[in-house]
Amino acid sequence: MSWHYEAPLASMRRVMEQVLNAPAHWAECPAFAELDMDTADAVLQEAARFASEVLQPLNGTGDLAGCTRAADGAVQTPPGFPAAYQAFVQGGWPALPCDPAWGGQGLPLLLDAAMREMLDACNHGWNMYPDLLHGAYETLKHHGSDELKARYLHKIASGEWLAAMALTEPQAGSDLGQLRTRAESQADGSLRVSGNKIFISGGDHDLTDNIVHLVLCRLPDAPPGTKGLSLALVPKVLPDGSRNAVHCDGIEKKMGIKASATCAMRYEGATGWLVGEPHRGLAAMFLMMNSARLHVGLQGLGHQEMAAQNAQRYAEERAQMGRPIAQHPAVRRSLQRLRTYTEAQRVLAYRAALALDLADHHRDDAVRTRERRFAALLTPVVKAFCTHHGFHGPAEALGIWGGYGYVHEYGIEQTVRDARIAMIYEGTNQIQAIDLAQRKLLADGGAAAGELLASLQAEVGDAPALNALLGEARSLLPRWLARGAGDTAFVLETADDLLHGLAFALLAWAVARLDAAGEAHTAVFAREGVPEGLMHWWRLRDALEL
Amino acid sequence: MSWHYEAPLASMRRVMEQVLNAPAHWAECPAFAELDMDTADAVLQEAARFASEVLQPLNGTGDLAGCTRAADGAVQTPPGFPAAYQAFVQGGWPALPCDPAWGGQGLPLLLDAAMREMLDACNHGWNMYPDLLHGAYETLKHHGSDELKARYLHKIASGEWLAAMALTEPQAGSDLGQLRTRAESQADGSLRVSGNKIFISGGDHDLTDNIVHLVLCRLPDAPPGTKGLSLALVPKVLPDGSRNAVHCDGIEKKMGIKASATCAMRYEGATGWLVGEPHRGLAAMFLMMNSARLHVGLQGLGHQEMAAQNAQRYAEERAQMGRPIAQHPAVRRSLQRLRTYTEAQRVLAYRAALALDLADHHRDDAVRTRERRFAALLTPVVKAFCTHHGFHGPAEALGIWGGYGYVHEYGIEQTVRDARIAMIYEGTNQIQAIDLAQRKLLADGGAAAGELLASLQAEVGDAPALNALLGEARSLLPRWLARGAGDTAFVLETADDLLHGLAFALLAWAVARLDAAGEAHTAVFAREGVPEGLMHWWRLRDALEL
Repeated sequence: MSWHYEAPLASMRRVMEQVLNAPAHWAECPAFAELDMDTADAVLQEAARFASEVLQPLNGTGDLAGCTRAADGAVQTPPGFPAAYQAFVQGGWPALPCDPAWGGQGLPLLLDAAMREMLDACNHGWNMYPDLLHGAYETLKHHGSDELKARYLHKIASGEWLAAMALTEPQAGSDLGQLRTRAESQADGSLRVSGNKIFISGGDHDLTDNIVHLVLCRLPDAPPGTKGLSLALVPKVLPDGSRNAVHCDGIEKKMGIKASATCAMRYEGATGWLVGEPHRGLAAMFLMMNSARLHVGLQGLGHQEMAAQNAQRYAEERAQMGRPIAQHPAVRRSLQRLRTYTEAQRVLAYRAALALDLADHHRDDAVRTRERRFAALLTPVVKAFCTHHGFHGPAEALGIWGGYGYVHEYGIEQTVRDARIAMIYEGTNQIQAIDLAQRKLLADGGAAAGELLASLQAEVGDAPALNALLGEARSLLPRWLARGAGDTAFVLETADDLLHGLAFALLAWAVARLDAAGEAHTAVFAREGVPEGLMHWWRLRDALEL
Repeated sequence: MSWHYEAPLASMRRVMEQVLNAPAHWAECPAFAELDMDTADAVLQEAARFASEVLQPLNGTGDLAGCTRAADGAVQTPPGFPAAYQAFVQGGWPALPCDPAWGGQGLPLLLDAAMREMLDACNHGWNMYPDLLHGAYETLKHHGSDELKARYLHKIASGEWLAAMALTEPQAGSDLGQLRTRAESQADGSLRVSGNKIFISGGDHDLTDNIVHLVLCRLPDAPPGTKGLSLALVPKVLPDGSRNAVHCDGIEKKMGIKASATCAMRYEGATGWLVGEPHRGLAAMFLMMNSARLHVGLQGLGHQEMAAQNAQRYAEERAQMGRPIAQHPAVRRSLQRLRTYTEAQRVLAYRAALALDLADHHRDDAVRTRERRFAALLTPVVKAFCTHHGFHGPAEALGIWGGYGYVHEYGIEQTVRDARIAMIYEGTNQIQAIDLAQRKLLADGGAAAGELLASLQAEVGDAPALNALLGEARSLLPRWLARGAGDTAFVLETADDLLHGLAFALLAWAVARLDAAGEAHTAVFAREGVPEGLMHWWRLRDALEL
C-alpha cells in the first residue's frame, strides 16, 4: 500500500507499437532503421528499473531535506542525489537522444520521452538537473562555434557536465524583452557577462564539477526588446580550471520540487562566449523550445501516472463501509477518470515526440514538413494540457486517501506540490495558449490544425460521443479563425478555452485509438471528458455569439 | 504589492443588508431584536482589525515554523500564536455566538460567519484552534449534565479552555462504525477511556491550560457500528488539577495548515464523563454538524477572498509587455472569475448562516421549520462547493504571480496548500454530496429543494443565462429524484455532479441578487460559471439517458 512506482511499460509499448506504429515509422528514418520494438522495450525496462529503484526512494527524503548551502555559498543537493546522478551518467542515460558523433546513443526522442515520463513520475526534483541537458546540447550543437563544440558538447552529451538556462530576471518573466544582463566583447573574442538572474534551475549544485550556463544577455550595441538578446555560454569553471565569476546568491523556498535548487545567480564580469549570432540569442534558444516544452508536458504525464496507479492500489486495499473504497461509486469514478485521462494524454505526448523525430529524421521531405507542423501544433497543447491535468489529476486523487492524502509520508501531497510548477515554467500555460492561437493556428489560417483534425476524425470511427467533440472542434475552428484574424483581444481572451477544447478533441482521437488497440476508455471518456471538452467549446460558441 | 488582507467589509455589509435583508430578519428574532446593521458593522470592523493586524502577520511565519514538541512531548505552537490567542480571548471573540447565560455575546451566527471568514483568510492554521470551540460548546450545552455544564461550559464559551474533537481512528475515517476506543463505567459515575485517535486537530497545544476532549468511544455493552458509539468528555487536566492520562504521541507532517497541531492521541485509561445518552454519541455530535460544516465552507470562502484580492493588487502593479498584467485578457478573465465566484459564494455561505440563525431564533414556528430545512440543504452544498473552489480558485490564482507564485514569501502557495484540507475534513466532499443526495433530497422527495429553487428563480428575473442554469436544475431534479429513489448505485455515482450542478444554480441566484444590489457579475458568471454548471447537468442528463 506504500507509495511506489510500477512503470507502465505495457501501456508505453502499446502506445508506441499499436497506436502510433512507431516501428514502421522508424524504418522510414535512416537514423533509426536498426531499431525494433524489442530493443526499445529493453531500453525502457532498464530506465524503469533506474527510475523506480534508484530515484523513487529519494523522492520523499529529497523533499524533506531540500537543498542547502554550504558556508561558502555552494549548493548541496539532498543526500543520495549526487550518487544517483553518477549512476545515471554511467548508464549512458543523459546521451539517449544525442548524436552518436558526440557520444550519444542516437535513439528517438520518443524513447527519451518515455524515459523522462518515468524519471519525472519518480522524482521530479532530481530530474530537474538532467532535464536541461538536452536543450543545451541542441542549442550548442546547432549554434555553437566549432571551438565551443569541441570544448563542451561531448561533456554535455555524456552528462559529465550539466547545464543551466539563465533567462529570467526579476523584472522579466514572460516578457524577455525587459532583460538587462550585459555582455561586453573582449579583445580575445570572449565576453564579460554581468547581471542578475532569478529562478535558475540548477544554477548551482554538487552533481557535476562544472556547470555550463547559457545566459541571455545584451551586447552594448543591442536594439531594445527581444531582438537585442544574445546568448552567452558561461561556465562555472573556466578552461584553465579557475572559478569563473558566477555566484549563487540564494535558493528559493518553494511550494514543491524542493530538491531542485532554484537559484538567484549573479554574473559579475564572468567570462563567456557568444553562441550563435549577436542579437539572435532568442532564436538560438527557441530551437530547443519544442523539445523543452514537451519535456514539461511529460512531467505532467508522469505525475498523473504516479497518482493514478498509487490511488488505485490504495483504494483496492483500504476498506470503509465494509468494502474496498475502490468499489465506492464516487471513488471508482475518480479512479477511472484518472486512468483514462492519463492513458489518452500518453498517446498525445508520445505523438508529439514522434512528430519531432519524424520532422528531423524521416527520409521523405514531405513527411518531415508535415510532421514539423504537427509538432509545432501539438507542443503547446501537450505542455499546457498535460501540466494542467498533471496538477489537477493528482490534486483530485489526493482525496482518495482521505486525511492520509494530506500527510507527507503517503506521497501524493508532494506530487500535487511538485506538479504545480509545470503549469508555469517553460512558458506559462496562458503563454502556450497564445502561442497555439497566434503562431500555430492563425499564422497558417488553421491549415495544419484542419488537416490534423480531419485525419484524426477518420480514425475515430462511429463512436458518437467522440465524434461530437471532434465535430464541434471542426465546426467551430473555422469560425474562430475568421473572427480571430481581425480581433487580437478576442484571440487573447479565448485562447485558453481554444487550447483545452482542441486538446479534448485530440483526446477523443487518442481514446478511439486506444480502444482499437484493445483498451476500453470510450465509456469513461464519454462520461467525463466529453462534457468537460464541450464546456470549452460552449464558452467559445458564446464568445463567437453563436 | 506584498501579501496582506483588506477585509471585504463593504461586500459583507452589502450581502447582509441588501441581499439577505438580515436586519429585517433579526427584528423577527427576539434574541437579536436589539441588533442593527451599524452595530453589526462595528463588530466586524473590530474583527477585521484583529484578523489583518494580529493574525495575518503570523501566517507565513507560522507555516515555516510549524508545530514542535518539547522534550516531554508537549506540543508548542509557532511563535506568537499563544499571545494572539490571549488577545482573541480578551476581545471576547470566542464567545460571539454563545448564549449570554454562559458568558457569550449572543450575536447571530451570521456575524460569527463573517468573523470566521476573516480569521480563515488571514491564518487558517491559527484558526483551527478556536474553530472547534463553538461545536464543543453546542454539544455540551445541549447534551451535557448540569454538573458538566457548570464545570466546563463557561470556560469553553469564554475560550479560557479550548476543545478537541476526537473521532478518527486509523481504521475509521469516513466509516465511524469501525471505531474501537473503549470506555468503562466507574463506581463514581466517571468513565475510563482507552484508545488511539489520529488526525486530532489541537489534540495538544500551548494556547490554553486545559483542553477539553470530546471522544467518541464504545461502552462495554455497545452494539456494533455507529449505533454503539458514546461521547465522553475527557479533559487534559482533571478537576483536582492533576494531569489526565491523555497523551500526544506525535504530530503529522502535512501539506499545509502546518501551524495547526494534528495529533495522534492516546487515551490510556483516561478519566472522562458521558455526554448525552449511552450509544447516542453520534447524535450528540451531529447536533453541531451543520455549523461545523458551515465553518469549513467559510475557510474555502476566506481562501478565495485572500487569493482574489492579492492577485488583483499584484496584477495591477506587475507590468509585462508594457502594461499591467491585470489588463492582459487571460489574466483579466482569471481575476474576474475569482471575484465573481467569491462574491457569489459569500451570499450562499451567509445565507446558510442566516438559515441557522432563523431556524433557532425566529419568532414564527413555520419560518423556523422552513429555515431548518434550508439550512440542512445548504450546509453540504456550502461545505463542498466553497472548499472545492477554496482550493481551485487559489490554485488558479497562483499562476497570476508566475514563478513568484511558487515561492513561499509571496503567500499564495501557502493558501493553496492550506486550502486543500478543507475538501477532506468534517466529512469529505464526496460524503457531503451523498448527504445532500440521500438525506436532503431523496428523504423528502425533493420538496425543500424544489421550494428553494422556485423561490430563487422568482428572484432572478429575466437574465437568460442565469435562468438557463436554474431552469436546467428545476427540470432535471425531479427526473433525478425519480430515478434515484430506486437506484442507490445511480445516486452515489451522480451525487458529485448533482451537488455542483445545484450549487451553480444557487450561484446564479446569488449573482442576480448581487447585481440587483448594484454589483455587476452577471456577464462574468454567464461566461464562466454557466458553462461550468451546465457541464454538471449535462453529465446528469447523460446518466439519466436523456
